[in-house]
Amino acid sequence: MAPSGQKKKGILERLDAGEVVIGDGGFVFALEKRGYVKAGPWTPEAAAEHPEAVRQLHREFLRAGANVMQTFTFYASDDKLENRGNVQRFTGQQINEAACDLAREVAEEGDALVAGGVSQTPSFLSCKSENDVKQIFKKQLDVFVQKNVDFLIAEYFEHVEEAEWAVQVLKSTGKPVAATLCIGPEGDLNGISPGECAVRLVKAGAQIVGVNCHFDPEMCVKTVRMMKEGVEKAGLKAHYMSQPLAYHTPDCNRQGFIDLPEFPFSLEPRILSRWDMQKYAREAYDAGIRYIGGCCGFEPYHVRALAEELTAERGFLPAGSDKHGLWGAELKMHTKPWVRARARRDYWEKLKPASGRPYCPAFSMPDSWGVTKGHADLMQQKEATTQDQLKELFTKADQSH
Amino acid sequence: MAPSGQKKKGILERLDAGEVVIGDGGFVFALEKRGYVKAGPWTPEAAAEHPEAVRQLHREFLRAGANVMQTFTFYASDDKLENRGNVQRFTGQQINEAACDLAREVAEEGDALVAGGVSQTPSFLSCKSENDVKQIFKKQLDVFVQKNVDFLIAEYFEHVEEAEWAVQVLKSTGKPVAATLCIGPEGDLNGISPGECAVRLVKAGAQIVGVNCHFDPEMCVKTVRMMKEGVEKAGLKAHYMSQPLAYHTPDCNRQGFIDLPEFPFSLEPRILSRWDMQKYAREAYDAGIRYIGGCCGFEPYHVRALAEELTAERGFLPAGSDKHGLWGAELKMHTKPWVRARARRDYWEKLKPASGRPYCPAFSMPDSWGVTKGHADLMQQKEATTQDQLKELFTKADQSH
Amino acid sequence: MAPSGQKKKGILERLDAGEVVIGDGGFVFALEKRGYVKAGPWTPEAAAEHPEAVRQLHREFLRAGANVMQTFTFYASDDKLENRGNVQRFTGQQINEAACDLAREVAEEGDALVAGGVSQTPSFLSCKSENDVKQIFKKQLDVFVQKNVDFLIAEYFEHVEEAEWAVQVLKSTGKPVAATLCIGPEGDLNGISPGECAVRLVKAGAQIVGVNCHFDPEMCVKTVRMMKEGVEKAGLKAHYMSQPLAYHTPDCNRQGFIDLPEFPFSLEPRILSRWDMQKYAREAYDAGIRYIGGCCGFEPYHVRALAEELTAERGFLPAGSDKHGLWGAELKMHTKPWVRARARRDYWEKLKPASGRPYCPAFSMPDSWGVTKGHADLMQQKEATTQDQLKELFTKADQSH
Amino acid sequence: MAPSGQKKKGILERLDAGEVVIGDGGFVFALEKRGYVKAGPWTPEAAAEHPEAVRQLHREFLRAGANVMQTFTFYASDDKLENRGNVQRFTGQQINEAACDLAREVAEEGDALVAGGVSQTPSFLSCKSENDVKQIFKKQLDVFVQKNVDFLIAEYFEHVEEAEWAVQVLKSTGKPVAATLCIGPEGDLNGISPGECAVRLVKAGAQIVGVNCHFDPEMCVKTVRMMKEGVEKAGLKAHYMSQPLAYHTPDCNRQGFIDLPEFPFSLEPRILSRWDMQKYAREAYDAGIRYIGGCCGFEPYHVRALAEELTAERGFLPAGSDKHGLWGAELKMHTKPWVRARARRDYWEKLKPASGRPYCPAFSMPDSWGVTKGHADLMQQKEATTQDQLKELFTKADQSH
Repeated sequence: MAPSGQKKKGILERLDAGEVVIGDGGFVFALEKRGYVKAGPWTPEAAAEHPEAVRQLHREFLRAGANVMQTFTFYASDDKLENRGNVQRFTGQQINEAACDLAREVAEEGDALVAGGVSQTPSFLSCKSENDVKQIFKKQLDVFVQKNVDFLIAEYFEHVEEAEWAVQVLKSTGKPVAATLCIGPEGDLNGISPGECAVRLVKAGAQIVGVNCHFDPEMCVKTVRMMKEGVEKAGLKAHYMSQPLAYHTPDCNRQGFIDLPEFPFSLEPRILSRWDMQKYAREAYDAGIRYIGGCCGFEPYHVRALAEELTAERGFLPAGSDKHGLWGAELKMHTKPWVRARARRDYWEKLKPASGRPYCPAFSMPDSWGVTKGHADLMQQKEATTQDQLKELFTKADQSH
Repeated sequence: MAPSGQKKKGILERLDAGEVVIGDGGFVFALEKRGYVKAGPWTPEAAAEHPEAVRQLHREFLRAGANVMQTFTFYASDDKLENRGNVQRFTGQQINEAACDLAREVAEEGDALVAGGVSQTPSFLSCKSENDVKQIFKKQLDVFVQKNVDFLIAEYFEHVEEAEWAVQVLKSTGKPVAATLCIGPEGDLNGISPGECAVRLVKAGAQIVGVNCHFDPEMCVKTVRMMKEGVEKAGLKAHYMSQPLAYHTPDCNRQGFIDLPEFPFSLEPRILSRWDMQKYAREAYDAGIRYIGGCCGFEPYHVRALAEELTAERGFLPAGSDKHGLWGAELKMHTKPWVRARARRDYWEKLKPASGRPYCPAFSMPDSWGVTKGHADLMQQKEATTQDQLKELFTKADQSH
Repeated sequence: MAPSGQKKKGILERLDAGEVVIGDGGFVFALEKRGYVKAGPWTPEAAAEHPEAVRQLHREFLRAGANVMQTFTFYASDDKLENRGNVQRFTGQQINEAACDLAREVAEEGDALVAGGVSQTPSFLSCKSENDVKQIFKKQLDVFVQKNVDFLIAEYFEHVEEAEWAVQVLKSTGKPVAATLCIGPEGDLNGISPGECAVRLVKAGAQIVGVNCHFDPEMCVKTVRMMKEGVEKAGLKAHYMSQPLAYHTPDCNRQGFIDLPEFPFSLEPRILSRWDMQKYAREAYDAGIRYIGGCCGFEPYHVRALAEELTAERGFLPAGSDKHGLWGAELKMHTKPWVRARARRDYWEKLKPASGRPYCPAFSMPDSWGVTKGHADLMQQKEATTQDQLKELFTKADQSH
Repeated sequence: MAPSGQKKKGILERLDAGEVVIGDGGFVFALEKRGYVKAGPWTPEAAAEHPEAVRQLHREFLRAGANVMQTFTFYASDDKLENRGNVQRFTGQQINEAACDLAREVAEEGDALVAGGVSQTPSFLSCKSENDVKQIFKKQLDVFVQKNVDFLIAEYFEHVEEAEWAVQVLKSTGKPVAATLCIGPEGDLNGISPGECAVRLVKAGAQIVGVNCHFDPEMCVKTVRMMKEGVEKAGLKAHYMSQPLAYHTPDCNRQGFIDLPEFPFSLEPRILSRWDMQKYAREAYDAGIRYIGGCCGFEPYHVRALAEELTAERGFLPAGSDKHGLWGAELKMHTKPWVRARARRDYWEKLKPASGRPYCPAFSMPDSWGVTKGHADLMQQKEATTQDQLKELFTKADQSH
């Protein structure tokens, strides 16, 4: 932890020095479970409405070892907030400001940086012009600059083109910029490969590239590995980050967990254990990823597991490990011998945990474009290319059968 | 919600009037995931160490609809705190006092009562006298009385005898007393049936009886049903409560989830969904249970699901439902038609959620007494009846092979 | 094997002497897979139509160690053959005669006895008189007597009453009589417990009682254990037999595998391995069952596994073991070390075989009376007690929705 | 069926005319279950020892619709028979002759051709010369020529090189030659892609190419599709065949089911249903495969399902369908309405059959080179390239730990 009074090292200083940077976890899912975010809209008005809840979650991630407090500004662009249709008690600016203040307040309690985040916009999907879309990002960015965040993240983009625009806007501030797409090995929604996506993001100005959300750790690490190969092949240089789901998704298709039938309300059997997380941290590290965090589904103990796995590399344990015996060590004091026998790494690494659900399978078939009769025909016409056109077509289709 | 300034109805007034009382969820597991409780000792020193974290969890359960704030005093008896061997920065009294203050503070923010709780003691297991054990309970009770909790709960007892002693001590205050055992249909660890256990608890003075922890909702409701039959057969009268795990445990044996190989660090695939919780609430209600809450594994959204399922019976939704569309209603606005198709009760009730874990089974074999060679022999001698004797024997056995 | 020319010991001599008698496997399922029996009707006209196929299956069971060749006369009563509606090229008498000849021919090739079998009749279900039903059995029995089978089996009865009638008819011949119901621990379709069923069968004259079909080995052994307790409690004496399914059915209800959604064409994932069979043989033996065979799903290698497990008790291996290394012994010569490592008992006993079916669950919900709307109402009226009445009612119900 | 007395159309005439040719199923696995083949050696001496059993299996496949009777000569080369170490009562020549006679006898009972088959040899693996290996094939071929089989199959080769040698030998007879490798999408054991393998086999003289054994239908069809692409890309022409396992193997690695922990004695939960087979037949047909058969695990009803699925294309049903209602049609006469409800295609196609095995997973981890300590090191030295060298090394390794 940074000695008090001493200026913290910036994100690039840390990564350039080869340090591991632990990211935080996903706020929208964690706060949905706590009762402060509505699934569906997924908007972050809680930053203004229930600051104590958001602050507490920041603190828990900090204790867990996170070096970054991302502002809780996911889907906080004006067009998104409006699009979600709820009359808000707070303006977009108020939400973004409150989010910055909370992140900064907690970051100052430890060795963490504040990262201002922007994400994909309805404006892009409805084919607004590059300029219009950039204005949307600019408006959030103005708050981040005013609140003096430490660095910026463009995250959760399905189209590399929109992410490039975001990076270009964020770059204008001179602050370090990270960019993560929510894609898997098949690439972005236009079929652009992870390698090419990464090259384009680096060329747009991002110093850190990677993926977040939509896929499980295994697939995310695989995708970042492809990004790294692409960047290196192009003779470029970057740092790499991954912030995957805390859900196992081996059965998902290109659109990730959105298309799984369990999304978003029955994902429980897929939740990763802390041991799964240690495996992830190791694999990410071995793949050359140094900014290692999480997204939807990550709870504080998941982040702590990342920090604990990389104890040797980081040189210290997170504060929260004062409440955690490594590899179940505290079970040694249990009175039952067979519970005591669980106090070892080998036990937890090898265990194949049962679901307690004999009527449930291991895999689901993802839903997808065209599964619903009628919609299939619409999609095959390939005339519907914008979200609005699709909505209109689907509405008609829905009404007609 | 009670109009401010108006005295709240007590627990028995509510139950006598036929109201549904929603309980809160389990603090030790929820706070373990948040980084404030150590698995193994499971002691609640966080009440004094990290009050903001405990307060926040209380608030989330309150928002979720809980009518009871249980003091975070699980395993907070002096003998337990000592037994767990950690040098504590806070005395047992300080922890119990802090827990009472936090519960009261949040209870006053809504229509909730404060319940002071005691649980099983090492003193009983090591065969201390009835008087000694009662002194242990008495010490916690003194704090509860001084802090003027609204009612008392004796919970998590494996032996009905110890629970009786606890009830007798708690009764001395004149406050209402609830008593829950952590048993399943096979009865307590001495093989006393649920029906007989319940009768004994009622005779000892408990007005509310039931079970908590160790088993999933299905088994808990079944066990309380057996208790109710026993009480009614004996010509007695009581109110009934259940506070089960939020984990599916169809494969466990008499000792419940402790003996499952996944306990306590790989239980994730067993976590109940909100829809599983609605089913539980309905089944508990139909079984005549009116105090319906949760234990280990329950997160705020689980409690909210209980309140939502019983909306018609209670006449209102919990505050936290402002962030939750019933049965996924908010998905109706999703742009993908197949995600919109998930916005209905029928969909979620029928879904058999996949685990994403093809290498994992549905059931585990519980560990149990005697599985480890050598220990089996010891147990068969049946000479080891106290915890200390067992420890000693096991230690010898461990050393010898 | 009995020295040629020497008279074989009868079934009761063997059992009275404490010998293990290995039964054969189920013909209708095995011959369905081979293309000679039609699922649905399940009638045994192949005995006359395709004698070479039936003979070959007898031979394989003989080689596998079976001491009994049951005549392939399942559902070969005249009323059943007619009821199944197919114009037959052969009369019931021809089929029964051919079945006897085949069984005898192969039995003479080794140390096996011929058992003539009768099973439940449509006449009973449509409430024909005791006398009518007995005439049906009598007609098959006349063939068995003429062909001089060694003993008789009344098998696959869902109502103990009909089985009693069958036993009474079979007893008239003076030949030993075995009787097995297709019931589980819940008893017969009138709810008569296994214990009481067994007592009634013994009183009716059966020297050997037990169960066959409908349930997996575990449930069958459990049911026979209940039968044995009943018989012993009544101060009676009998020999015990079990001929279970070769399918795992832990998820079935009172009607057994018929009500599982997979019946009869998707039962493959439930098929027992040879190691499961060895476990069954051991459990049956330990339960005091000495006539140990199989029913639907049993292939010759399953029967061989029964014989191999009980090698020590029987004193010899079956002929077919010349093509089987015990516990995979022949794998020792495999060139891959990891395949060689499978050549041991411990390996196969502990293996939890994967299904290769990640989209399939472990359990199914059994179909049952009343699942189809409309039918539920009919059943609740409880006015439909005969098969014909049911058919009529269902037909009306089917037409009306 | 060919009018009696009329000369049957040859294999190439049929395929050239666009007809579907249904292959038979795997003899070694089917006869192992019947008690006539020993797992491990897998040698076909039963052709001479137990001709009635082999004949009966031929007949069942014929009835099921098979247009080809493969001689039961798998692993019947002299070097293999010797290598397996058993003192045989019959010479290799006797076994091969008996197998030809049986195949011919049954083929004449219907519209089937006789195919003489050779498979991989120990001589190749132990690095015998091309000439030596070819002599081995030649010896079996002499019998096939003398017995005048209709065409020849070189099957179950892991190295395309050995298969080329076999094809060259077989071609010398002027008879049509088919060649199938036991490979998956990753290619042969030297890493040669399916496309290149197919091109080499066609160039060596095979008119029909494809795969058999080692993988499930899905993977086999995929592999043959790759072969077809390779052949077409090379401007060549061939017919295509597939004879996959009747086991689901989505979790296997390059060596197929051999490396699955369940091989060969616990594969039961993986067995395909008849409906899975219909799906396979359709997919194979759609991929342009016209010689569609099976290998290990295929029982007669599996082959019948292939023929039934392709009824429209073939213009007739197999003889064995007189004992099979399509898509469960015969269940319509069942007395229970919910069983009657299963008499439809939609039901069986959608059913996800349960395993009845809650303690078993969906996938296994394949064993593989190097999993056993000590062996790993040996393999990494890459000095052990022949079977004998490997055996020697492994033996030493086994002795040393």
